[in-house]
Amino acid sequence: MKILFKNADILVRDEKFNVLSNAFLAVDGDKISYIGTEEPKDEFDEIKDMSGKLLMPGLINCHNHCPMVLLRGIGSDLPLQQWLFDTVFPIEDRLTDDEIKAGSYLALLEMIAGGTVSFSDMYGPQMNVEAVGESGMKANVTRPILSAEPNETPEQSYRMREAIEHYEKYNNTFNGRVLIDYCIHAEYTCDERTARVLIDEMNAHNGNLHIHLSETKKEHDECILRHGKTPAEWFDSLGAFESSAFAAHCVWLSESDMELFRRKGVSVVHNPTSNMKLASGFAPVPKMLDMGINVALGTDGPSSNNNLDMFEEMHIASIIH
Amino acid sequence: MKILFKNADILVRDEKFNVLSNAFLAVDGDKISYIGTEEPKDEFDEIKDMSGKLLMPGLINCHNHCPMVLLRGIGSDLPLQQWLFDTVFPIEDRLTDDEIKAGSYLALLEMIAGGTVSFSDMYGPQMNVEAVGESGMKANVTRPILSAEPNETPEQSYRMREAIEHYEKYNNTFNGRVLIDYCIHAEYTCDERTARVLIDEMNAHNGNLHIHLSETKKEHDECILRHGKTPAEWFDSLGAFESSAFAAHCVWLSESDMELFRRKGVSVVHNPTSNMKLASGFAPVPKMLDMGINVALGTDGPSSNNNLDMFEEMHIASIIH
Repeated sequence: MKILFKNADILVRDEKFNVLSNAFLAVDGDKISYIGTEEPKDEFDEIKDMSGKLLMPGLINCHNHCPMVLLRGIGSDLPLQQWLFDTVFPIEDRLTDDEIKAGSYLALLEMIAGGTVSFSDMYGPQMNVEAVGESGMKANVTRPILSAEPNETPEQSYRMREAIEHYEKYNNTFNGRVLIDYCIHAEYTCDERTARVLIDEMNAHNGNLHIHLSETKKEHDECILRHGKTPAEWFDSLGAFESSAFAAHCVWLSESDMELFRRKGVSVVHNPTSNMKLASGFAPVPKMLDMGINVALGTDGPSSNNNLDMFEEMHIASIIH
Repeated sequence: MKILFKNADILVRDEKFNVLSNAFLAVDGDKISYIGTEEPKDEFDEIKDMSGKLLMPGLINCHNHCPMVLLRGIGSDLPLQQWLFDTVFPIEDRLTDDEIKAGSYLALLEMIAGGTVSFSDMYGPQMNVEAVGESGMKANVTRPILSAEPNETPEQSYRMREAIEHYEKYNNTFNGRVLIDYCIHAEYTCDERTARVLIDEMNAHNGNLHIHLSETKKEHDECILRHGKTPAEWFDSLGAFESSAFAAHCVWLSESDMELFRRKGVSVVHNPTSNMKLASGFAPVPKMLDMGINVALGTDGPSSNNNLDMFEEMHIASIIH
């Protein structure tokens, strides 16, 4: 199937984000075969007139918890710890697998409608990887790890087993559109013995770590009290940044944390709406960019946002910084 | 012309913002003649099915500079004083009346498309009051005053003459849909002798004052240095709050300023996007509401926003505070 889009303004993903006016874009199967201002001579099965419209690369939402569309608006006006432990976790405990599947579909539709074509999700096996496959989107999906119960080894915890099974079953499936990341939810929800097992498993597979890090001042300060190290330093000491990693929020990173991230190539995902809604603070994004840290953008879960609109996220990031 | 909207969800503007489900709303001419869940028995010229849609009161944008749609995106990433004096004013100096009229039309269309039915505008006579009349919207429009030139009396300044003519020609026109307010741009752009003349003229007509006040720390602190008073105290000492007044931004109000506003019944217009974009700060909105001050919401001009979307403004206000 060959399609020609004509009379389009085309945002070219070069360094200056140039726009070609009144240009042509041809698609052959699932590949873009031509972009330019001269009409290509080939025969096409379909020609679409894009007058007055902009064609641009799809957006990538780098930190999300898709099924939490079901919790949109829940716990509004609460700071993170209260929001999470008093309202979100008790509701999530009662969600059925079917409900979470339905939430996954809704989130996928909402993202596609908003121009998002790829996302990194932190939820669990119920996130419905099959639905991601069906949707045609790309996704990095993960099963987050929390502390194992005191009466079991980390290897016995159902979350660890699910994380390992999830990786084996789904990593690099749907023509490589679905990748499975490893995930520790956060320092304040995962003890050292559990974190070590997950990190060793990840490094054995040269895996990719998705983590919440230094999101709130409380989290950052309590980690220093508990371990004598910032969350970034503590996870680094456990080997968490040896293969590849990206950390969501990073509102309270110290200067030496940033230097560590720069050196280890850890990416940061900025979530400006969520950081304001949950009163977490303002991440030092201009400083991180100046230092050469790779900073990506994400909506966070729709329950701490309340939507999955990347254009709104770009706008809010631009007016904050 | 009688129209019935059926199967609508209707947001009723009562204290609890209740929503009537699957309800009916009838319009007779330019009046709503019925709202309820039982179908009215009258004959209608037109029946519209609103299934899956919400009917709600129109939105009111309480602080805007409509024609500045033409300057959207200009001076991005600059703080207010630099943005205003180095980029905005020099461009505005070169705008023709026809260009400003075109900007007015564009702003009206943008507001209507976003559900806004009424607005308070601070621009000038070129704002095109006739276009507001044509549009069917309601508006409070004004001609802002700045310091008269040193070689003229305030009465001789063209701005003062335009403000007075504007009031005489347009106040309470188009069936009362257009009202003319009095306006002093701000303390840092208006000297005492000019302010006094405008305030006396306003109080003689029991007029309504639209003003920028304590928007930036620089403005607030420099006013104290110049006059030994905060902007709120200084304007109060000139009689500015004797009839009726609303003040935009109010980011840096002191506690006693707020107490003054509460006592005098001065309303505050909160402009969260603009305050972030121009790095002005965060207005103490929860405190003002707790004190019983009337706080309204506005987009500010589209060049400090960059749009006229009141839903976005509500969202950003809700995640900030």
